[in-house]
Amino acid sequence: MADINTIAKQFTDFYYNTFDTNRANLGALYRDMSMLTWEGSQLLGATSISEKLAGLPFEKVLHKVTTLDAQPSSPSVASVIVSVTGLLVVDDSPNPLQFSQVFQLIPDGGSYYVYNDIFRLNYGA
Amino acid sequence: MADINTIAKQFTDFYYNTFDTNRANLGALYRDMSMLTWEGSQLLGATSISEKLAGLPFEKVLHKVTTLDAQPSSPSVASVIVSVTGLLVVDDSPNPLQFSQVFQLIPDGGSYYVYNDIFRLNYGA
Repeated sequence: MADINTIAKQFTDFYYNTFDTNRANLGALYRDMSMLTWEGSQLLGATSISEKLAGLPFEKVLHKVTTLDAQPSSPSVASVIVSVTGLLVVDDSPNPLQFSQVFQLIPDGGSYYVYNDIFRLNYGA
Repeated sequence: MADINTIAKQFTDFYYNTFDTNRANLGALYRDMSMLTWEGSQLLGATSISEKLAGLPFEKVLHKVTTLDAQPSSPSVASVIVSVTGLLVVDDSPNPLQFSQVFQLIPDGGSYYVYNDIFRLNYGA
């Protein structure tokens, strides 16, 4: 099995590249029990989550990952918690936004799906 | 059972108050299988985690929570993922640092212990 940091890196590379190029395709990463908390709004299930992500008011968006940490999230299952901090460049703004995002990935037939997803923009003092 | 947001609020109130007043006491929240990733450094187990936290180079520290989100982290166990963003005031500095922290809490005899803990300071663009 791949190293946990490799899994986290491959997942986030794929996730943010898909988000930044065709975020309608992100729905395939979620299941009916998946949860997304986006800036405090709670969505349950792949359909609701896809609609939320597709409807975000960005024309053009670019994620730049600053830090990426991963830990196994269970002693018995090969699930993974991934914590990301980074910068979000929206519609070519010269002022990127800081963000924090947490995922829990659950193994599923050689791949992983997203069970938990919590996204927050970070504003300064 | 308490609502998940209540659990997250009670836990983070206790955790940051203890961190800011007597962080040697935080060790009681961890177990032998607990993990802490602190600014990229990986610690395993309550003893190592306690030593890391006790040895941090802060005389005086104050956490101010800006956002707090929680989700159930398992369909079968009452475990909780808690995502925090906030400000850290170190040694009365006028320039607070932004931080992001993720916990996974596991139920244990009417209370919870910390299984996963990932902490990062966030620096701007």
